[in-house]
Amino acid sequence: MDFIRKELNRRRPGQSGLTTPRKEADEVTFLSGIYEGKTTGTPIGFLVLNENQHSSDYDDLKTVYRPSHADYTYQQKYGIRDPRGGGRSSARETVARCVAGAIAKIVLQDYRITIRAYTSQVGTIRLKGSYNDYDLSLAETNPVRCPHPATALEMEALIKEVKAQGDTIGGIISCVIQGTPVGIGEPVFGKLQAALAHAMLTINAAKGFEYGDGFEAALYRGSEHNDRFYNDKSHDQEMIRTRTNYSGGIQGGISNGEDIYFRVAFKAVATLLTEQETVTVAGEVTTLKARGRHDPCVLPRAVPIVESMTAITLLDYLLIQKAR
Amino acid sequence: MDFIRKELNRRRPGQSGLTTPRKEADEVTFLSGIYEGKTTGTPIGFLVLNENQHSSDYDDLKTVYRPSHADYTYQQKYGIRDPRGGGRSSARETVARCVAGAIAKIVLQDYRITIRAYTSQVGTIRLKGSYNDYDLSLAETNPVRCPHPATALEMEALIKEVKAQGDTIGGIISCVIQGTPVGIGEPVFGKLQAALAHAMLTINAAKGFEYGDGFEAALYRGSEHNDRFYNDKSHDQEMIRTRTNYSGGIQGGISNGEDIYFRVAFKAVATLLTEQETVTVAGEVTTLKARGRHDPCVLPRAVPIVESMTAITLLDYLLIQKAR
Amino acid sequence: MDFIRKELNRRRPGQSGLTTPRKEADEVTFLSGIYEGKTTGTPIGFLVLNENQHSSDYDDLKTVYRPSHADYTYQQKYGIRDPRGGGRSSARETVARCVAGAIAKIVLQDYRITIRAYTSQVGTIRLKGSYNDYDLSLAETNPVRCPHPATALEMEALIKEVKAQGDTIGGIISCVIQGTPVGIGEPVFGKLQAALAHAMLTINAAKGFEYGDGFEAALYRGSEHNDRFYNDKSHDQEMIRTRTNYSGGIQGGISNGEDIYFRVAFKAVATLLTEQETVTVAGEVTTLKARGRHDPCVLPRAVPIVESMTAITLLDYLLIQKAR
Amino acid sequence: MDFIRKELNRRRPGQSGLTTPRKEADEVTFLSGIYEGKTTGTPIGFLVLNENQHSSDYDDLKTVYRPSHADYTYQQKYGIRDPRGGGRSSARETVARCVAGAIAKIVLQDYRITIRAYTSQVGTIRLKGSYNDYDLSLAETNPVRCPHPATALEMEALIKEVKAQGDTIGGIISCVIQGTPVGIGEPVFGKLQAALAHAMLTINAAKGFEYGDGFEAALYRGSEHNDRFYNDKSHDQEMIRTRTNYSGGIQGGISNGEDIYFRVAFKAVATLLTEQETVTVAGEVTTLKARGRHDPCVLPRAVPIVESMTAITLLDYLLIQKAR
Repeated sequence: MDFIRKELNRRRPGQSGLTTPRKEADEVTFLSGIYEGKTTGTPIGFLVLNENQHSSDYDDLKTVYRPSHADYTYQQKYGIRDPRGGGRSSARETVARCVAGAIAKIVLQDYRITIRAYTSQVGTIRLKGSYNDYDLSLAETNPVRCPHPATALEMEALIKEVKAQGDTIGGIISCVIQGTPVGIGEPVFGKLQAALAHAMLTINAAKGFEYGDGFEAALYRGSEHNDRFYNDKSHDQEMIRTRTNYSGGIQGGISNGEDIYFRVAFKAVATLLTEQETVTVAGEVTTLKARGRHDPCVLPRAVPIVESMTAITLLDYLLIQKAR
Repeated sequence: MDFIRKELNRRRPGQSGLTTPRKEADEVTFLSGIYEGKTTGTPIGFLVLNENQHSSDYDDLKTVYRPSHADYTYQQKYGIRDPRGGGRSSARETVARCVAGAIAKIVLQDYRITIRAYTSQVGTIRLKGSYNDYDLSLAETNPVRCPHPATALEMEALIKEVKAQGDTIGGIISCVIQGTPVGIGEPVFGKLQAALAHAMLTINAAKGFEYGDGFEAALYRGSEHNDRFYNDKSHDQEMIRTRTNYSGGIQGGISNGEDIYFRVAFKAVATLLTEQETVTVAGEVTTLKARGRHDPCVLPRAVPIVESMTAITLLDYLLIQKAR
Repeated sequence: MDFIRKELNRRRPGQSGLTTPRKEADEVTFLSGIYEGKTTGTPIGFLVLNENQHSSDYDDLKTVYRPSHADYTYQQKYGIRDPRGGGRSSARETVARCVAGAIAKIVLQDYRITIRAYTSQVGTIRLKGSYNDYDLSLAETNPVRCPHPATALEMEALIKEVKAQGDTIGGIISCVIQGTPVGIGEPVFGKLQAALAHAMLTINAAKGFEYGDGFEAALYRGSEHNDRFYNDKSHDQEMIRTRTNYSGGIQGGISNGEDIYFRVAFKAVATLLTEQETVTVAGEVTTLKARGRHDPCVLPRAVPIVESMTAITLLDYLLIQKAR
Repeated sequence: MDFIRKELNRRRPGQSGLTTPRKEADEVTFLSGIYEGKTTGTPIGFLVLNENQHSSDYDDLKTVYRPSHADYTYQQKYGIRDPRGGGRSSARETVARCVAGAIAKIVLQDYRITIRAYTSQVGTIRLKGSYNDYDLSLAETNPVRCPHPATALEMEALIKEVKAQGDTIGGIISCVIQGTPVGIGEPVFGKLQAALAHAMLTINAAKGFEYGDGFEAALYRGSEHNDRFYNDKSHDQEMIRTRTNYSGGIQGGISNGEDIYFRVAFKAVATLLTEQETVTVAGEVTTLKARGRHDPCVLPRAVPIVESMTAITLLDYLLIQKAR
């Protein structure tokens, strides 16, 4: 329970000056599936009430389509729309992902699998090199969740500058999974990278996914980026490993025991504190300026969400393999 | 039937000097679901026999793990492996995707939806600008399927050079969907971009997916990349549209009526005609050199596969919306 | 909302002397999916808290396996068990089915489809003839929900006698769906009768399902029970109908426009107010005698559950057909 | 392979004078998923071509709706229909179920689970008592597949009489699963009996399903039919068992280790060799008389289909439990 609470706190708004000052309580109440501190194997139901939202804050949204938000598409899709807090399209729903992810992480501990995500880029400020060059545990020591303190400070400064302008900024989150056994992932339509891509692209504001050498793979030749196998005899038990890991720990859709790593691009938050041109539901020209309490940069709070979706996806596939 | 045959031909090996000279027949035989030239609404079963494969070509593969192939992961996952042609992990399975995609495209014609993919990058040779700058129908006029003839020639030259060295090269395929009605895609875990990402990452050798401004979104501010709504009165019927389309035609996981566009990164083919270090099934060091008949670059043949997976995915979501 | 409340009340314990005197409040709170009295197209979440249950009532159940209950199987399956109220196996979960069923019924009204279930047998007291012989609306006028008042009185008397003995009794519920359009149901594994059978057998205490002539079909010859088609010209629009309806409104898994009717057998409630031999979790012999508040006969309260599961199942298949 | 062929033969028409004289070859060709006699873990594709069917036999069926067949419902559902052999609604599709069932049975042998179905009723001729009263292996010694030779002869005589009249007859198949471990089946909507009911009701001509005491449960009191637990110390390992087994081996949707037994009702085959009134596709009155080659009684050939669907269903649920 403490772990779940801690994970929820990592996602919570108002953790630092970088994120929205909204102070949501985010207390989780379990309704089913847990008895005397243990899961019973039956579905886990829980509630996280939104103590902090004032429906009146969203009155404008009944009649105006916010640019780059889902107001227009929901209205057209369903012919009806709940405007409170963006309704079903609100990033608020990711709170449930964090609870589920926290539970999945607890299970993954038994498999000795660890998942670590971190902010690797904000605007043009980019963490150089590979995840191997950093002590990833440092990511949790600063509000942007970047494992390199000096870069973290630069990112912070940029976010504060952007915030002062009533603007927002995008970035990239990197994620590493260590300890996955060989054989996780399913052929053809169930490839592990496809499941991870799906999971990541369901996160609000995510615009791209790449794993292993990713988009850079386009530049290289097979002779440069093929991962040669060798027999690693440095441990008690011989193990077939690869000398490089451009594959990103997945070959033919199935984990090969090497680290799985991937990157997720996030666009700037669409809600701005400056005036934007848009139209009303009736199609008339108007302008919109959001009132307080919005994130200038989604990245720091998206880190635990990326980890959660990774944990959920991986555990699903571990269980599928276990059935074999 | 002619259309399906034509689509299969676009995927077929041996179309040009750029691809594997293997001359697979790729004749599709429909077993069910089609009666007097029309689908009956029941499952469509079909067979595409592989006339051209000699199992003996794969004798080596029983005992050796090919680098960056799925031999090792399949062996570990299942404890047993069919080595013929890479078995279940062979890109040969995409022939079925092309048949399904051709059928989906026929249905999408009724919705006036068109899907066009093309090669936008091979190695470092990159098509500049946006898809709007090119006449995409030109892609089918050259063997690399790039809509800019001059760039196509450069790409061809590079692929031939790489091939002469017994090597392979990666690249990027871009894809545009035009005519999607507003409202396609489902909230939360069924976002349209997530389904497309999943579909693309199931294609062999795909390493990344991005839609709209994609990974570039990381660099921009909300004020720069938000898509302002306006009321387009230039047609008989008023239509709410966006002045820019950084969103890539999808907002909140649901199509907004603008063009949907995305890019898929492909790594270099792992099978090389040069010697590579690897290990045998028993863990012993060996070297491997593939014999003839392999693609130096997967991109040209992957173009129809990207289109097929797009068509299948989009039609699924159109039918889901139709049920509403 | 009123309709949903009314439907919940039909399932509620303590409606009459025939059912458990437990007075559960059964107030439903909608958490999502409904805005200003209309569904928004997104998932409908709701809570029905159990105000009336005292966990202490179930203290015995931690250590004793109740005969013909799920205590033993859950314990063995999961290795852990929440004994409160039978946990996940409690018939209490059917409250959610009634809420979902009430919503499905509201939608089915637009299709002019009506669903009516009723108690057709309790112990040896059996309603003779077919559903056509009765005014089914009378079922709601008596506590056993039997449409024939005289038979209802006999059933009531039997249930009271059984209750006085601390015993319980089984019975049969019949159900009729009227107004289903032709074409609902899917081939092979999605046959409408298979979906209905599945739905009914998920209800606690259900032991059998039959539709149309059901188990009686075993006795008859094809020449006796085939349903002859004729062209019904008695309405404005010609309609192909069948002269008899032994098929029960479904042919080849697909509705043919005639009435769909089926029967569901229920066993006697397993919880008795008399002593029963059983074993403890440790495997020791013991006896068990339930304390107050249990139904002598599940039939009257199961009627709305049968209707709800029918409504949910049918609406699913209507939406599948709508996607075509 | 031999086992699969043998199982297919049990379903094959023309095994005896009781079934259709059609001599389908029913040779199965495996296309994928099997390598050197073992399954590889990837999907198993196979073909069973219908060597014996003459499309011309079905010419009438283009224009006439056969009574109690699916011609009319398919036509209305899809607006198009493949009339050859009943198309998708033909019982011919059960050949695939037998192949899948044979493979599932091979896997179930490793779990020491046995499945035995037999004909327990044809028309009014009924096998008395319980499955425990018979040596079920005798079912395969006679063409009706009834384990009691004397009753089998009566059934045979009845079927022959019915056949001589150009008529058909229904019946009941009973099935027993022995050796299921405790804990198979899922709560609420995944109850094992619901999955079995679903599976059985997908078989052509099935009209009802009951397990354990089934419809008879309606007649009994809890005190009569509750299954008392006891600690069976007669084996090396203590085991909690039930003194009776009215529950049919399933409690709360989950297997309790006792025998699982159930019964499936089948109606008479709809195709008659006598004239029947019906309508044409255009709605005009006509009569129909089938030509040769049809079963007077589906029961004997349905026995292996019931077993196959049981094996497939049970194996699914075993794998689900294995994932836990």
